Formats: sequence, structure tokens, C-alpha cells
Amino acid sequence: MFVMKSDGFVASTDLLPGMTAEDIGWKTAIMSLSDMAAKGVKPEGCSIILGIERERNTDFILKIYKGLIRAANQYDFYIWGGDLNEANDLIVGCTMIGWAKDGKIVTRKGARPGDIIAVTGCFGYTSVAYKVLLEGYKIKEKHYLNEILRHVYRPIARIREGLILKNFASASIDSSDGLALSLNLLSDASNVKIVIDKIPITYIAKKFASEYNMDVLKLVLYEGGEEYEIIYSIPIHMWNKAYNAVREVGGKLYPIGRVEEGKGVYLKKNEVYERIFPRGYQHFK
Amino acid sequence: MFVMKSDGFVASTDLLPGMTAEDIGWKTAIMSLSDMAAKGVKPEGCSIILGIERERNTDFILKIYKGLIRAANQYDFYIWGGDLNEANDLIVGCTMIGWAKDGKIVTRKGARPGDIIAVTGCFGYTSVAYKVLLEGYKIKEKHYLNEILRHVYRPIARIREGLILKNFASASIDSSDGLALSLNLLSDASNVKIVIDKIPITYIAKKFASEYNMDVLKLVLYEGGEEYEIIYSIPIHMWNKAYNAVREVGGKLYPIGRVEEGKGVYLKKNEVYERIFPRGYQHFK
Repeated sequence: MFVMKSDGFVASTDLLPGMTAEDIGWKTAIMSLSDMAAKGVKPEGCSIILGIERERNTDFILKIYKGLIRAANQYDFYIWGGDLNEANDLIVGCTMIGWAKDGKIVTRKGARPGDIIAVTGCFGYTSVAYKVLLEGYKIKEKHYLNEILRHVYRPIARIREGLILKNFASASIDSSDGLALSLNLLSDASNVKIVIDKIPITYIAKKFASEYNMDVLKLVLYEGGEEYEIIYSIPIHMWNKAYNAVREVGGKLYPIGRVEEGKGVYLKKNEVYERIFPRGYQHFK
Repeated sequence: MFVMKSDGFVASTDLLPGMTAEDIGWKTAIMSLSDMAAKGVKPEGCSIILGIERERNTDFILKIYKGLIRAANQYDFYIWGGDLNEANDLIVGCTMIGWAKDGKIVTRKGARPGDIIAVTGCFGYTSVAYKVLLEGYKIKEKHYLNEILRHVYRPIARIREGLILKNFASASIDSSDGLALSLNLLSDASNVKIVIDKIPITYIAKKFASEYNMDVLKLVLYEGGEEYEIIYSIPIHMWNKAYNAVREVGGKLYPIGRVEEGKGVYLKKNEVYERIFPRGYQHFK
């Protein structure tokens, strides 16, 4: 069975201040790769549709491709071809193809009551980055700022984790639409309730939230997105095997909650259940 | 072997006056299908990347999809999915996938001296349409104008011809970059000379050129494009079989010249050889 996933990077809505042409190429690849990872599919190759403003020079186009090629080397896929057009915006569209050789993919639909909800990494880099890059908030320590920018300009795709966890997970979704929204999409698709009791949050986001007196949980749930961590539901009898398998490929699984019968997503704080709403950044909403 | 082809329709450069959203969807599909046809590959499915301006309404997006779906029904391929983005231009990117089950595709590289050069239809509709729609020329007869507009708004892809001719052709290219340029691309890729002695031209283009005192051959060679006819080189001993096979699927092959040793493309008029230059409408040229 083969799997195809298209994603488009559009400068007028997706370009962050400071992002280079090479970052754009890299990030476009990661957007498609992350979905492949969530489905447990090995990416094989892609085709690129480029829409580019007349005033951009050849060097700019080549640097976008340099970023794509860097991702292709890192994640072992081909760039098979593409199409170049003049446009009034910068658009990099990537259609990625992968093969599920055993015919098995992980969807959003299989989460069952009793399953553990887990994620592949810490949250908070992009929510802080957006505050800093788009809303004028400040981070004093230069090394913290650099760490944040590295994560948003050059995110990584959880391919190794995805290829291993397809053997253990009952459902999955990538978190690129934002943590709150992605959890709700998983809950809806599987028709189950999800209860979250902790979220792994980067030290920088905690420090930032505390300095600006923000609720750090709300910050990472609702104001992030494009973090490319994967959210899994894993049957409880599979948990130890899944956890160890991810460790063996160099990754980590963070349990964040559990699946129950019912509907909706909730945050459990001191025995109080608080609704996590399907909000987040989305085009046309 | 599978074949992947990406093509993008961009409103700021490709939208003709009077074209509807449904036309845009249809034409985007035809752009990819025509390349599949030239290669002799059955299209199986596609993924669509849509970039759309904020001010467009849902109905407009649905109508683009309506055009795509109409093409999918007509040409028997699936629309597997896609991605929707906000952008400062209207871009419809289509990545089409097809399978060459016998592992055989027709490329631009196989034309050999002695081969016949042939095309799948008449030329001239788009060159006249561009004059009328973009440069203010007039066509008095309404039924002629309608015929022209039908051809540019709803072009057809030569899939049936392509699937049959893969068994006979030594090389092929679709003519969407314009007849003069496409012939030169074929000549370059195959490293042969091509001599054209006649070109099938629609009655309307002949009448139009005569009324405005234009050279009709120059008009169709250099000022057309996006006609989606396929140019073939066919070994002379295959000609009768190829011609009959195309007739049987409801199409027609028009011989327009022959392949010789050498380089370049020439038009033979009354024993005078006139160079056909690699000119035509191209992005970034």
C-alpha cells in the first residue's frame, strides 16, 4: 500500500521573521515527513511545486532546494521532480510518497479506553517563539533564544519513532496543528474521551511563562503548533515494549494521559477536570 | 514502475479572462494528465495543494474541486487528498501518479532518423484565444468564438491516444509549452534534426490569420501553447499500425514531418528550409 501526503508552505502566512530560504525548504519537507511518521510509513520520495515571486533570484530558489536536499539526505528520501511557476506569493508544495510494505498504517481512529496517551517530545518551543517573533516578547539569554529559533526554523520529523511505534500504537496523530487541537482530532476520530494529566514542557517555556506570568499549560496547549511531535495512543499491555523500542532508536516516549470511554479532551488538575478545547491556529478558521 | 508528475496553475500568470473556478480545476488536472498521456502512462490518482486568497469564499473552492472531480470521472483517476492554505495568489498544484505496469514509458529521447513526426490534433485554438482574450483582437462570429473558448477553458488530455501509442512511438512530448518550443525540446533530447512540412491548423485560426493578415504558421508555432496535443516520433515501419490503432480508440494521427540526422528544427516551405526557433511562452524566460 502506498501513502501520499501533500503539504504547502506559504510565505504570507507561514514565514517567520528570520527564516532563510534553506529553512523554508527544510521545513516544507518536515511538514510532509511528520505525517508519514505519524502513520508509520517510510517516506520514499516527493515532488515539489514551487510558486515564486518574479523578484526572487535564482539563488533564492536554489537555497530552498538546498534545504529540501538536506532533509532528503537526513531522512533518506528522493526528490523526484517538480514544477516551477511564477506567483504573487512564495509557495512550496511538497507531495510525499511512502510505501507501507506490510500494508499496515496507523490512523487516528484506533484509540481505545485504557490506552495510554504519549508524545515523542517536549512542547513549548514554538509557542514561545511565536510570542517572541510575532508579538514582541523578549528573551534575555541569547543561548535560550538560539535554542528556540533552532527548533522553529529547523524542526525534526519523528520518522524513527514512527517506524517503530507502528508496531505498538492503536492510533496516532502529529501535533502540527497544535497540541489542544490535535488531541481533540484524535479523540473525535477514535470516538473516545482523552484525559491529560501532565505535559512535558521545555525548561525555556516554563521560565518564559513564569517571567511573564502566563499559564504555561495554556501556552503550550493553545498557542503552539508546528512542533512535529507525534501523539500516540498505546494499549497498556504494549506500553513497556513501546517505550523500550523507542529508546532503542534514540527517542523517548512521554506518557501524558489516558483514554476513557466518552467524548472530549480534559486536563486533570488536582482532581478537577478542565475541558481542553479544539482551538489552535488553523487556516480559514 | 510508477510515474509522478507535478503541475501548478497560478491565477496571476495562467488565469484567462472569463475562466471559471470549475475551469481552473479541470485545466489543472489536464496539465498533469497530458504529461502522463505523452509518457503512455495510465493516471491513477492525484493529490492537490491549494493556495487560495483570504477573500475567496467556500463556494469558489468547491467549484475548483468540482472541475477536478469532473476530470477525475472523465479520465478515471482518484483524488486522494491534498492540502489547503491561505495565500496571496490562487495556486492549484496537482501531483499525479500513474503506473506503467509493463515498466515501459515513452520519453523524449528515442527519436531516430527516418521516423515520422506526428501530432494528435489540430493547432491554433489557443494562439487565437490569446490574441482575442489578452490583446483585444475580435472574432465576429459568436459560434467560432465559443468554439475557441471551449478549447482553452476545457482542453482535453490525449490519454487514449497515449496509452495506445506507447506501443509504437520511439519518442514523445506534450505540446503544452508551445509547438515550436516542444519540437525543439524533442529534437534536443533525441539529438536529431526535425523537418516539419505541414501543420494541421484549425479552420478558425486560418480565417483569423487571413483577416488580420498574419502568418498563420508563425501564429500557431510561436504564439500558442497549452494545447495539450502530443507530438510523436514513430518509426516508419510502425506508421500504419500506429495510425490505425489511434483511429480505433477514436483519435487521429496527423503526420507533420520527419526526423533526420543533425540538429535543430526546420520548416520546409517550397524546398526552402526555415529554422523553427525554441521560442514560446515560458516562466522565467
